[in-house]
Amino acid sequence: MLPLWRANDLGVVLDLTHVGRPLGGVDRFPAAHAAMLALEAGAIANPDEGRQVGHYWLRAPDLAPEALQPVIRQALADCQALTLAVHRERVDAADPESDLRFRDLLVLGIGGSALGPQFIADALGEPDDRMRVHFLDNTDPDGMARVLGGLDLEQTLVLCISKSGGTAETRNALIETQAAYTRAEVDFSSRAIAVSGEGSRLWTTAAGWRARVPMWDWVGGRTSICSGVGLLPMMLQGIDAVELLAGAGEMDVHTRRPELDQNPAGQLALAWLALTDGRARRAMVVLPYRDRLVLFSKYLQQLVMESLGKKLDLQGQLVNQGLTVFGNKGSTDQHAYVQQLRDGPDDHFVTFVAVEDDGYAGQEDVEPGVVSGDYLQGLWMGTRRALTEAGHASITISLPTVDARRIGALIALYERAVGYYATLVGINAYHQPGVEAGKQAAAAVLSLAASLAGAVTDQGQTAGEIASRVGADPAEAWHILRRLSTNERGVRCSDGAAPLSDRFSRRAPG
Amino acid sequence: MLPLWRANDLGVVLDLTHVGRPLGGVDRFPAAHAAMLALEAGAIANPDEGRQVGHYWLRAPDLAPEALQPVIRQALADCQALTLAVHRERVDAADPESDLRFRDLLVLGIGGSALGPQFIADALGEPDDRMRVHFLDNTDPDGMARVLGGLDLEQTLVLCISKSGGTAETRNALIETQAAYTRAEVDFSSRAIAVSGEGSRLWTTAAGWRARVPMWDWVGGRTSICSGVGLLPMMLQGIDAVELLAGAGEMDVHTRRPELDQNPAGQLALAWLALTDGRARRAMVVLPYRDRLVLFSKYLQQLVMESLGKKLDLQGQLVNQGLTVFGNKGSTDQHAYVQQLRDGPDDHFVTFVAVEDDGYAGQEDVEPGVVSGDYLQGLWMGTRRALTEAGHASITISLPTVDARRIGALIALYERAVGYYATLVGINAYHQPGVEAGKQAAAAVLSLAASLAGAVTDQGQTAGEIASRVGADPAEAWHILRRLSTNERGVRCSDGAAPLSDRFSRRAPG
Repeated sequence: MLPLWRANDLGVVLDLTHVGRPLGGVDRFPAAHAAMLALEAGAIANPDEGRQVGHYWLRAPDLAPEALQPVIRQALADCQALTLAVHRERVDAADPESDLRFRDLLVLGIGGSALGPQFIADALGEPDDRMRVHFLDNTDPDGMARVLGGLDLEQTLVLCISKSGGTAETRNALIETQAAYTRAEVDFSSRAIAVSGEGSRLWTTAAGWRARVPMWDWVGGRTSICSGVGLLPMMLQGIDAVELLAGAGEMDVHTRRPELDQNPAGQLALAWLALTDGRARRAMVVLPYRDRLVLFSKYLQQLVMESLGKKLDLQGQLVNQGLTVFGNKGSTDQHAYVQQLRDGPDDHFVTFVAVEDDGYAGQEDVEPGVVSGDYLQGLWMGTRRALTEAGHASITISLPTVDARRIGALIALYERAVGYYATLVGINAYHQPGVEAGKQAAAAVLSLAASLAGAVTDQGQTAGEIASRVGADPAEAWHILRRLSTNERGVRCSDGAAPLSDRFSRRAPG
Repeated sequence: MLPLWRANDLGVVLDLTHVGRPLGGVDRFPAAHAAMLALEAGAIANPDEGRQVGHYWLRAPDLAPEALQPVIRQALADCQALTLAVHRERVDAADPESDLRFRDLLVLGIGGSALGPQFIADALGEPDDRMRVHFLDNTDPDGMARVLGGLDLEQTLVLCISKSGGTAETRNALIETQAAYTRAEVDFSSRAIAVSGEGSRLWTTAAGWRARVPMWDWVGGRTSICSGVGLLPMMLQGIDAVELLAGAGEMDVHTRRPELDQNPAGQLALAWLALTDGRARRAMVVLPYRDRLVLFSKYLQQLVMESLGKKLDLQGQLVNQGLTVFGNKGSTDQHAYVQQLRDGPDDHFVTFVAVEDDGYAGQEDVEPGVVSGDYLQGLWMGTRRALTEAGHASITISLPTVDARRIGALIALYERAVGYYATLVGINAYHQPGVEAGKQAAAAVLSLAASLAGAVTDQGQTAGEIASRVGADPAEAWHILRRLSTNERGVRCSDGAAPLSDRFSRRAPG
């Protein structure tokens, strides 16, 4: 049995007692560790994109290449100054009677520009936060209208985050948000901040805004939580971002140790290797027993799956690697799908996150001498036992409490474990070639939609008939024409007995 | 290629054009359909628990056994009357100056008593809902304190939902909630409603409350959304529950058809069979392209995984069946884990949910003639194409709009598909034996915790030393003793160099 390991400064415990098999690839760990040290020393660790991988420098600027050190420090100072100014400012400075402050923060961003901030906002948020944080993380018109409709825009600051500055969803969210400010007759520019690469399209757009905070090409989107992407929203919310950086930095010290038995990220990566057979044999189910950690699995979905879900290895061989992550929280999920985890196929392992501190001092006795937190722990350990009895492995991470420092440490632990695992299975963790394919296909669909709309005539025709004129698939054409019709976008539909019998014709512009 | 199928009354489309293989088990469908008809006719379809399975009767009382018909109708009428009274009532009736109304609804429930209400509250909620809905769905003291701390209890109505009336998490949430009302000096009983089995412990507890709404043993927790469990919270929020029942009932008519090509649930179940090889070969990733459907995957996780994740088949043979479900929403998830779905292992299929209606009429052009909704559809279809090119199957459900009627239809479609699939693979979809194992193990851990606490002495000893006296595992003992110490529950800890060197001693009661 493997022992409990603890980072004594942080109090974070890695419990591998229920893995039920030896760590995998122990002999390959020194090479993986050497690759990680090279990465930290500035190697081009993302070969496809020819980029350095510098997110560890964000919490240890002394280790960064010399030219980047002042850049990192200045960005942090800028975020702090910006936050202080926003918190102090009266929204209507011209009216000495008004004491309105910025109360809401609307973050526009998607993927790496949303998942980290969302996780932190929920994990560390309280009802009396300095600002309440909301997100537009999609290009859904209905979703945007619902969020915008619940805000008093005068008291709302907008933070638009896009590393590339060209992400379509975020660009669309920005356009809809600006329009909402215009309709409400509230000035937008003085309420808007951009986080983006210097010189990007968004950077240019934001020239007249309240502020611009830089992002860098040596920080990947899914590891950008310690850059302005994560720091600025958490600071505005009122969370101690310096503590988060400190916790991440402390964990990095542990995960920089060459001795495997003192390196929790190495142990974690090798436990994954044993459980996945190094080829996605089992999925990782993430079950924190603490409500405020429910978004950790969504954060990890991107960090792990976008990093490890790769078609080719570094030698260009077809490997179709991956490590599936899902989960919500315990004990809640015990009343949902844990039935299958215990009784179903052997295709998963659970990662429990336990917290020592109950987080609330005023608990009632629910039975003599027993409080709700006792049940929470009992249900966690009981589920772990039940899974073990059924032959299913689990890993447990225990935190002394949930605070900014421990959240920083947790993130740093997983960033490093993912990096090790990628090296151990021989893939590039820092690119995402498959994402581009979806974007290109979307552009082709938008172009097809324009062709189809142009091919509709005054005579009612089926989707198949119209599709044949532009060389399109009838079912795809039906979805596109039907949506144009439903939204009264120049197309009218007369329902048939089945979708492919619907007849589409031109509709006079409304 | 399979055609697009549409329920013409509902406008709900099932698109199997991207399944990429023939439906599985077509010859076995008639038998599965016959079993479903027998279930609806009142057979003991849950043999382990000796119960009828009656959730379809909730939206078609005429089909229920005669004795149940008035019971179903009366419960609906009771929910309607209760809702009307709550909406009309002034919170402080004694004060003629006060016009305070019940503004917040706090639902206490877990699993089947929370996932349906949560899905509906988000899917159909708007900023101007009649009441805002909040949930306590766990036994996490910190999580409960955070929700309760954000509420004005005077204006908050509590709905405590537990079918059995004995669920520990919900009992604990009730105790903490009642204590919060007492501390705030707000009367609880007049603000509390129970939904539970008649005669249950909760039913008895709630004798003096504002109201009690009955649940029945012929409705399973994960299919209880059309009983008071789902209806009452949605009505209080201001959602048209009768429309939801109508939509579910309309879909049931389609899924009662013996002709496979006219039965969307049959087609769906047979598509799953083809994609899973009838033995959990691939996971179902659920990607609705609409923000307000983001909780659909959590709802389906329980409905599908708790129903299908079974160790034994109906003949008692070991089968370890299951069908893993996860997902959030598109296009958001394209910036998270869709990289792996496309480039990673062949272990999944996607279920897209598309919506014809953009849901917001005031969209801006984000490019000439292009709106955000065009991008949403383009990204969906583009992702579908990219997955297909990489050899990954997908199913698409298209809804004309998101409203109560279509949500009811969607739920009914999946309830029936899960029922068919279970019959096709020969398992009982309506029990959950594994859940009980976790509960029993939790009780054993609670008992162990009491033993360990009693075994701590004034001399500092390690977890291993204390564990050996009560026959416990040292690592388990460490987690238990450490938490007691952190929360100052009669145990003190002196940190060692590693967890198993920590020394625990008795702490004088604070």
